[in-house]
Amino acid sequence: MISVGIIGGSGYVSEKLAVLCDAHPLVSDIRMYGNTSAGRYLHEVLPGLSGRIRNIPILSAASLESHDVFFLALPHGDAIRFVTELSHDGRLLIDLGPDFRLKNVEQYSKTYRMDHSAPELLQAKAYGLSEWPDSQFSSVPLIANPGCYATVALLSALPVVKAFRVESIVINAYSGASGAGRSAHSDLLISEMYGNVRAYQVHSHRHEIEIRNRLDPFGFLGELTFTTHLLPAAVGIYSTTVLQTTEPIPLDAVRAAFHEAYEDCAFVRLRSTPPDLMWVAGTNFCDVHVSVRGKSIVVIAALDNLIKGAAGQAVQNMNLKFGWPETTGILMEKH
Amino acid sequence: MISVGIIGGSGYVSEKLAVLCDAHPLVSDIRMYGNTSAGRYLHEVLPGLSGRIRNIPILSAASLESHDVFFLALPHGDAIRFVTELSHDGRLLIDLGPDFRLKNVEQYSKTYRMDHSAPELLQAKAYGLSEWPDSQFSSVPLIANPGCYATVALLSALPVVKAFRVESIVINAYSGASGAGRSAHSDLLISEMYGNVRAYQVHSHRHEIEIRNRLDPFGFLGELTFTTHLLPAAVGIYSTTVLQTTEPIPLDAVRAAFHEAYEDCAFVRLRSTPPDLMWVAGTNFCDVHVSVRGKSIVVIAALDNLIKGAAGQAVQNMNLKFGWPETTGILMEKH
Amino acid sequence: MISVGIIGGSGYVSEKLAVLCDAHPLVSDIRMYGNTSAGRYLHEVLPGLSGRIRNIPILSAASLESHDVFFLALPHGDAIRFVTELSHDGRLLIDLGPDFRLKNVEQYSKTYRMDHSAPELLQAKAYGLSEWPDSQFSSVPLIANPGCYATVALLSALPVVKAFRVESIVINAYSGASGAGRSAHSDLLISEMYGNVRAYQVHSHRHEIEIRNRLDPFGFLGELTFTTHLLPAAVGIYSTTVLQTTEPIPLDAVRAAFHEAYEDCAFVRLRSTPPDLMWVAGTNFCDVHVSVRGKSIVVIAALDNLIKGAAGQAVQNMNLKFGWPETTGILMEKH
Amino acid sequence: MISVGIIGGSGYVSEKLAVLCDAHPLVSDIRMYGNTSAGRYLHEVLPGLSGRIRNIPILSAASLESHDVFFLALPHGDAIRFVTELSHDGRLLIDLGPDFRLKNVEQYSKTYRMDHSAPELLQAKAYGLSEWPDSQFSSVPLIANPGCYATVALLSALPVVKAFRVESIVINAYSGASGAGRSAHSDLLISEMYGNVRAYQVHSHRHEIEIRNRLDPFGFLGELTFTTHLLPAAVGIYSTTVLQTTEPIPLDAVRAAFHEAYEDCAFVRLRSTPPDLMWVAGTNFCDVHVSVRGKSIVVIAALDNLIKGAAGQAVQNMNLKFGWPETTGILMEKH
Repeated sequence: MISVGIIGGSGYVSEKLAVLCDAHPLVSDIRMYGNTSAGRYLHEVLPGLSGRIRNIPILSAASLESHDVFFLALPHGDAIRFVTELSHDGRLLIDLGPDFRLKNVEQYSKTYRMDHSAPELLQAKAYGLSEWPDSQFSSVPLIANPGCYATVALLSALPVVKAFRVESIVINAYSGASGAGRSAHSDLLISEMYGNVRAYQVHSHRHEIEIRNRLDPFGFLGELTFTTHLLPAAVGIYSTTVLQTTEPIPLDAVRAAFHEAYEDCAFVRLRSTPPDLMWVAGTNFCDVHVSVRGKSIVVIAALDNLIKGAAGQAVQNMNLKFGWPETTGILMEKH
Repeated sequence: MISVGIIGGSGYVSEKLAVLCDAHPLVSDIRMYGNTSAGRYLHEVLPGLSGRIRNIPILSAASLESHDVFFLALPHGDAIRFVTELSHDGRLLIDLGPDFRLKNVEQYSKTYRMDHSAPELLQAKAYGLSEWPDSQFSSVPLIANPGCYATVALLSALPVVKAFRVESIVINAYSGASGAGRSAHSDLLISEMYGNVRAYQVHSHRHEIEIRNRLDPFGFLGELTFTTHLLPAAVGIYSTTVLQTTEPIPLDAVRAAFHEAYEDCAFVRLRSTPPDLMWVAGTNFCDVHVSVRGKSIVVIAALDNLIKGAAGQAVQNMNLKFGWPETTGILMEKH
Repeated sequence: MISVGIIGGSGYVSEKLAVLCDAHPLVSDIRMYGNTSAGRYLHEVLPGLSGRIRNIPILSAASLESHDVFFLALPHGDAIRFVTELSHDGRLLIDLGPDFRLKNVEQYSKTYRMDHSAPELLQAKAYGLSEWPDSQFSSVPLIANPGCYATVALLSALPVVKAFRVESIVINAYSGASGAGRSAHSDLLISEMYGNVRAYQVHSHRHEIEIRNRLDPFGFLGELTFTTHLLPAAVGIYSTTVLQTTEPIPLDAVRAAFHEAYEDCAFVRLRSTPPDLMWVAGTNFCDVHVSVRGKSIVVIAALDNLIKGAAGQAVQNMNLKFGWPETTGILMEKH
Repeated sequence: MISVGIIGGSGYVSEKLAVLCDAHPLVSDIRMYGNTSAGRYLHEVLPGLSGRIRNIPILSAASLESHDVFFLALPHGDAIRFVTELSHDGRLLIDLGPDFRLKNVEQYSKTYRMDHSAPELLQAKAYGLSEWPDSQFSSVPLIANPGCYATVALLSALPVVKAFRVESIVINAYSGASGAGRSAHSDLLISEMYGNVRAYQVHSHRHEIEIRNRLDPFGFLGELTFTTHLLPAAVGIYSTTVLQTTEPIPLDAVRAAFHEAYEDCAFVRLRSTPPDLMWVAGTNFCDVHVSVRGKSIVVIAALDNLIKGAAGQAVQNMNLKFGWPETTGILMEKH
């Protein structure tokens, strides 16, 4: 049984972390840390909770207690200080923000337009795409949890890029608005977004560099077009990835590549039809469908942006790091 | 042909006013007045426009030009100064905000928690519920356009209160979130409101006093319970009103009362089944269904909160004041 | 550990029953019974499942195995035969349809327009509103699970009717469309219902007689107006109930009545503000807010129609019948 | 002033045709033809109408009167007989279904899996993409109105394919569910589609051949991947098209190609930011945004599937065929 600290207050991702950890059979206690609500209980701040969750206190981030694992769910720039402070004794740190996802400080400053004060930790982290852990995953205590879009894009593209020669990749992804967080923005009001769709950050979405980085080791150097859109909904990402190969690949070979990649992965479900987004909402699954025509491989994938795209994958990474079955506590059905 | 000035910039109601006036066959030109966007064209600020609407300038509210009619679509408190300034020469002023809806300064200060600096104008206005104009409507130049909820509630209750003795009224209304305007509020984000419902301002909604005031002349003194709710949608109000009468009233008599009230009213459609909200969205109609059991009369009504509940009724009032057919320019089908 | 049989195939309620029973710590095995999908596994028919749920077979309803409890989730008329067949040996039967909810065959034939072939069983059932069990609940093996609307209406009205003299009740309820089941109806298409609201079955909803029946023992004989509406959403019921009392009741007294009614009830949460529907979606909670003005008591309540309004309450009843804590297996947070 | 006949009863497209023709200043009268509702008025069958629309009769399709133009809005296979019968005297026929969109009977039978009984008419039609009329458009009386997806895809791709050498095209499009029509399908219930997304007909959507056909004259022979998805909404198509060129093209050159293509087109609005779908809902506009990176040109476009994707473009084609300004009657703002 372990003790968990969640730094990040009452955002959507922190909330999901609290719910998942609370239901986890090997977590004995949880503390939330966040300044705006310090001194209250989580179910007072988020009244939609308070079913199972009754007595999780929110403490000031200035007075961290000792925990076996810390999850950090903070805006970019804010996790660096905590990670620097907490990384001395080798305890497990899982950062769900972007501060440790990139390769080096040059990428970071270019992408997030601020300096990174802990370049050595940036090198010392593992990029925690659970199904495709990098070489440092098992040995280092700092896990950078991937971005939600990066997760679905990489789960779609990696089996193809690993198995075949790919010339270009077009990723088209739609996300529910919870991906933008709980802060007020007038263009995310339901009166603006109801029935609406909007592409955003064309050619400039910050998850793109994560995707590129993780494809690099497999030799992909071609064009990558990554376009993100807002759905008129709260939850989920639906993604359609088209990969042009240099030669036509038979469907059987593509399926074999996905089967090989995911046969031991509990949370990737290969589907014979394109998935409904609702099949994965509220779960840690990523559902994947593949098809081929000519030299184009089409991979359609869906996941819950707050679970497999954030809090669920973080718990999955915690499970892996502690040597527990990856499904421990997170193999739930939606209800 | 008349010239129209719209004071209020680029809120939802101002936008609808511009669209309706632009399509109105007897309006020759339109100016918008609003400080934050002054100097630009309306279709630049609201890019969803610019179909028909091409060249409506937004001017500073400090430099009002002369117009045959001014519409004011401002937060409470902000219209008083403009109305005071513009009311000297008797031109038509239609205020879509609440500053002139109530009976006297005592009601106003109690309801809106601020003083009213033009008590004589408050007395000199007409309350412009188009189908139930008050006695001053035809003679005074200042029209207070009713609140959206007040419109649907009064159109539902007045025929009953006028014709029968009513002991109590329960009004239950649900509104799309556009009623709250375009300002950012985190609890109106689509990520919060998607699939959600929330009652709000129970016993304290500011439209209740409007409803009471307009029922007063018909002798209703009983309990009135008015509960407002947010729908997970952008547009429309759906309202269910239950009126307890002292004696059972036959359905035929109730229907006759509604028929008498609305037989000459183009924008109230009596329906033999409860309406769909979508039947009125995008139109100036209020659809009404009545039924009876025992001493309970149930009136179900629907309207578009931004049109019949605001901009459409304002144009309807303009039509009436100029002696034109009330449907001029606003008898449109949704598209 | 018990064995569970669910008769009803792959409707929304059966699906929720499977999910809840699968997660229940004292249920060892589950069988589904339904003719159209017999021979397959549940996760093949409902591909949104297949997280935890892997190997629940669907068998023909003609060949029921032996189980410690049967849940029946069938259209009206279809449960009577099964209950007649299964009731011989006293095992627990929980019917989630309406066949055993009413008082006698006269009510049934009038309400459902068909004869009831097991009048003695109709008398022998308990009406299983978990927080207000009737006198037979603990002694008889046949539980009629209340309708979804009846649950929210009765949880709202009973504390008031029990404690005070009530003259009339107005219940206004809005439900997500999952309450209508999974059968195709063109007026429930998303293209028809998106942004739409529609009142339906005014004065004729079949849950009204359930509500009346359960209020009867407390002496309520006044007018009851029950109006049901469709929300543009999938899940949840939001209900606003106004009760006119003969005398004004102080708010403290009303709150005390609710506190007394529900202080030992894990699944009714009294709220100091009107609840968001999203606070209860995906849970077995019913959130309740009370307020008073004059002789009008307003009770606002929300629940998940498929959980507390159906499958969750059925499991809660199972827990109670087996003497387990009522929260066993169903005290979950939404995820 | 002309007389219009609409064959197709009360589907979504017929309804929009009626609304648009009713508001058209050069249409004097309208008749609907459809068997299931023959003998009634349109506003009785579609009660959401009956604002302006009051007295449009629905007649049996067996007894067509004489009209200056017929619009046909029928399922595939059903228009062939009517077109054969009506084409003798050269009056204008605009078919909004797919029966005359393809090049020849081989394409038709392969795509729609039925024989085409009027091969000579198939050759004699014009494909009526209003902004890109084919060479026969002005001379023949039979116009095949493009499919909704084909319209948005072709408006996106044609300027690029005409101006540059394109190697491959990836079209990713999301549509509101009204595109599937008003017939009941359980997988389009709001209870299934709320918050949901679903890719469908991957590699097999019937609009793909239309797209290919219209790109053919410009020499595009590369891979085309066309993936269609359902949005959780009623109205609109949002499309993201990525075209790989053989050489990098400067953004200015791409913009110039679009400007040249559309500078005289009232209904294509080039946008400097990706459009909101709501900017075009309820209008005949197609909003387009272009960007470039490397050899990838990204074209983001939005339209209303029932208007620019069907009824609006049909009226636009009628305007063009009669020599009227293309905007006549259809340059409306959403309301």
